[in-house]
Amino acid sequence: MNKNFFLLCLLLCAFISKLACAQTSADHFQPAASNLSGVAYPKISGDNRVMVRLKAPDAAKVQVQGGDGLQKDPLDLVKDAEGNWNGTIPSAGPGFHYYWFVVDGVRVNDPGSDAYLGYGRPTSGIEIPAANEDFHLLQNVPHGVVREQWYHSEITGKWRRAFVYTPPGYDASPNKKYPVLYLLHGAGENERGWSMQGHMNAILDNLIAGKKATPMLVVMDNGYAVAKGDTTPTTNTRAEMVRRAATLEEVYLKEIIPVMEKTYRMLPGRENRAMAGLSMGGLQTMLIGVKHTDLFSHYGFFSGAVFDEILADPKTALNGALSDANAFSKRVKVLWFGAGSEEKPFTKMATDTRKKLEGLGIKSSYYESPGTFHEWHTWRRCLHEFAPLLFK
Amino acid sequence: MNKNFFLLCLLLCAFISKLACAQTSADHFQPAASNLSGVAYPKISGDNRVMVRLKAPDAAKVQVQGGDGLQKDPLDLVKDAEGNWNGTIPSAGPGFHYYWFVVDGVRVNDPGSDAYLGYGRPTSGIEIPAANEDFHLLQNVPHGVVREQWYHSEITGKWRRAFVYTPPGYDASPNKKYPVLYLLHGAGENERGWSMQGHMNAILDNLIAGKKATPMLVVMDNGYAVAKGDTTPTTNTRAEMVRRAATLEEVYLKEIIPVMEKTYRMLPGRENRAMAGLSMGGLQTMLIGVKHTDLFSHYGFFSGAVFDEILADPKTALNGALSDANAFSKRVKVLWFGAGSEEKPFTKMATDTRKKLEGLGIKSSYYESPGTFHEWHTWRRCLHEFAPLLFK
Repeated sequence: MNKNFFLLCLLLCAFISKLACAQTSADHFQPAASNLSGVAYPKISGDNRVMVRLKAPDAAKVQVQGGDGLQKDPLDLVKDAEGNWNGTIPSAGPGFHYYWFVVDGVRVNDPGSDAYLGYGRPTSGIEIPAANEDFHLLQNVPHGVVREQWYHSEITGKWRRAFVYTPPGYDASPNKKYPVLYLLHGAGENERGWSMQGHMNAILDNLIAGKKATPMLVVMDNGYAVAKGDTTPTTNTRAEMVRRAATLEEVYLKEIIPVMEKTYRMLPGRENRAMAGLSMGGLQTMLIGVKHTDLFSHYGFFSGAVFDEILADPKTALNGALSDANAFSKRVKVLWFGAGSEEKPFTKMATDTRKKLEGLGIKSSYYESPGTFHEWHTWRRCLHEFAPLLFK
Repeated sequence: MNKNFFLLCLLLCAFISKLACAQTSADHFQPAASNLSGVAYPKISGDNRVMVRLKAPDAAKVQVQGGDGLQKDPLDLVKDAEGNWNGTIPSAGPGFHYYWFVVDGVRVNDPGSDAYLGYGRPTSGIEIPAANEDFHLLQNVPHGVVREQWYHSEITGKWRRAFVYTPPGYDASPNKKYPVLYLLHGAGENERGWSMQGHMNAILDNLIAGKKATPMLVVMDNGYAVAKGDTTPTTNTRAEMVRRAATLEEVYLKEIIPVMEKTYRMLPGRENRAMAGLSMGGLQTMLIGVKHTDLFSHYGFFSGAVFDEILADPKTALNGALSDANAFSKRVKVLWFGAGSEEKPFTKMATDTRKKLEGLGIKSSYYESPGTFHEWHTWRRCLHEFAPLLFK
C-alpha cells in the first residue's frame, strides 16, 4: 500500500510538472524568427499569441491589424509610461502574415520587421511557427539559388525584373536542360513575393532532395504589364485585371519566354512548360496559360481568381481552347486547383470552375489547405502539393 | 534697319521661348522612377525639387525628412481639404536617398515607394536623376545576375544569406574561373543594399561592357555576425563594431570564403581576391581584409569608418600586417580610399588613415566624390572608380 501510494505520488508529480512545463512553454514569448537581427518585438508565445510594441509617445491612438489569418479587426494597444504602445494578438495561424500598426489613422510599418510588398505597398510581415510542418523551411539539403534577372521590355517600354530559381546542380551540369514552371504572384504583390514571402526556394529544395519533385527551373516575373502609352490608372478591379492580362500575354509570348529560354538551359516544347499562379496569378494562368496549350501542358490555380465571366461560355472562352474537350484532355497533363479551407469566395471559385470544366468532360484535381485563409501558407502548401505532379 | 530690327525681334523671341522652356522643364513635376508601379507621388521637378504627399486626415502634425543629401531637417507639411499632407523639398542631390514621414512623432514610410533596409529598419527611398551620369543605370549591354545564396553558419548558428553577382557570360563559359570582390555594406543596412540601393550590378555590367573592368564575381554578405551564445545586444557603437568584426572575421575565414569557392568558379589565391566596404564595411575591410594579406591583395575603403584607435600603433595593429611596409607594399596591388566631398568626418578619417600609412612608407590612392554626402551616390561612384583597378 505504501509502495502504491509512493508510485501514485510519483505519477502525480510527473503529471503536474508536465502541466507546468506546457504552461511555461505556452506563456514563454520569444522574438519572431522573422524579426530583423537582434530585435525583441514582435514576440510569439508557445501557443501562437503575438505580443507587439510600438514607440509612439505623442500619438493619440495606436492599433495593430493583420492580414488574413492574423487579427483582421484592429486591436487597440495600450500606452505604457515609456511611450510604448503594447498589446497581444490572441491567436495567429501558421505561416507568414502581413501586419501593420495604425497610428492616428495612418498605416505604419513595424520598424522591427522586414517590409514585404503586399496590398500594393511595403508592409510588415511575421512568420508564425507551423506545428508539424517544415516543408517550407531551409534545411540541410542541397540548395538552388534565386537569381535576379533584368531585361528590357519593348512592349511596356520598361526594364522588367524576374526572379529565376535554378535547382541544385544547375551550375555543376552545364549541359543539362530543365523543364520550367512559370509561377505567378497575386494582386498588390510583386515578382519577389514567391521567394520572399513564399519560401519557394526552400519548398523546391526540400522536394528535390527527397526525390519528390523533378528538378526544374522556376520563373517568377511581375504580374503587372502596362503597354507603352497606355495611361489607364492601375487598379485591381476585375475588368482591369482581365484587360491587363492581354498585355501580359503579349509580354509572356514575345519577351518573357524567349528571354528566359535564351538565358537559361530550358528543355523546349509545351510538355516541358507549366504555369501556375495564386489569386490574380490564377486568373492569368487561365487567360494566358490555358489559352495557349501550344505552349504549356501543366496548370495550377492556387486560390485562383477565375471569375465567373471568364468561362461564362466555356466552349468559346479562351479562343476556344476548351472547345474540344478530348483534344484538350490529351494535351494537358495536370490541371490542378487548390485553396484554403477558410477562404470561401476562392474555394467556391475553384468549385465553380471545376464544375464548368467537368460539364465539358474535362477532369481536374482539387486540394484544400486545412485551416488557412487567402494567405501565403495556403500557397506554400499548394506549391508543395502541386510541384511533385509536374514533368512526370 | 527694318531688317536688323526684325532679326533682333527673332533673336529675342528665341531667347524668351528658351527661357520659358527651361522654366517649364524646371517646374514640370514627374513621378520618381523609384515609385512603385503607377504611383503618382513623390514627384521630381526638372531642377530636382521633390513634391511629397501623404494621406493622414486624422493626424495632428506631419513632416517629411530625409537622409544625407535630402532634407536633413524635418519639413512641415500642410494639410489640404482631402486630408492629404503636401510639401516640396526645395533641393535634392543626385542618386538614391532615404526619406520618411513623421506622423505625430512616429516615423512612417511612404506607401508609394519601395522600402530599403536603412538605419536598421525598412525605410522609403527615392532615386533623383544624376545630371550627365548614367554609369549606375541599366543599359542595353549584356547583364550579369545577382543570386541569393543561402548557407548554414555553424559559428552564428543561423542561416545566412549572401548576394552574389555573376558577370555576363558566367553561365555560357562553364570552365572559366573568375577573380572575386568581397563587397561589404554599412551599419544599419544589409547584404541586399549593394544591389538594391547601390545598383552594383548595373555599374559592373556597364564597366565590363566598356572593357573598363575585368569580369569578376562580387560577393555581398551580411556585415553582422553574432556568435552562437553571444547575448550582447546588437548596437553600432565603435567598440561593438570592432568587437563583432572578430566574429565576422571567423565567419569569412571558415564559412563565407570556403562556401563561395565551393559554390562558384573562383580563381584561387590572394591575387584573385579583393575586399572593399562602405562605412562600417570599410572598418571591416581594415580589420579583416588588411589583416589577411595572405587572402587578399586589393582593398577599397568607401567612406570607410577606420577609427583613430584602429591604427593607433600602426606597427602592431592588425596582427602586425603593416609592420614590414616593404613586404606589405609588394603584396598589396591596390589600396584605395574614397569619400564624398560633403562628409567631413569621413574625408578626415580617410586622410588620417592615409597619413598613418604614408608614415610607414605605404602608398595609397584617394578619390573624392564631388558634392555628395555619406550616401549611396558616393559609394556608387566609389565602386565605379575602384572596380577598374582590380585584377589588372
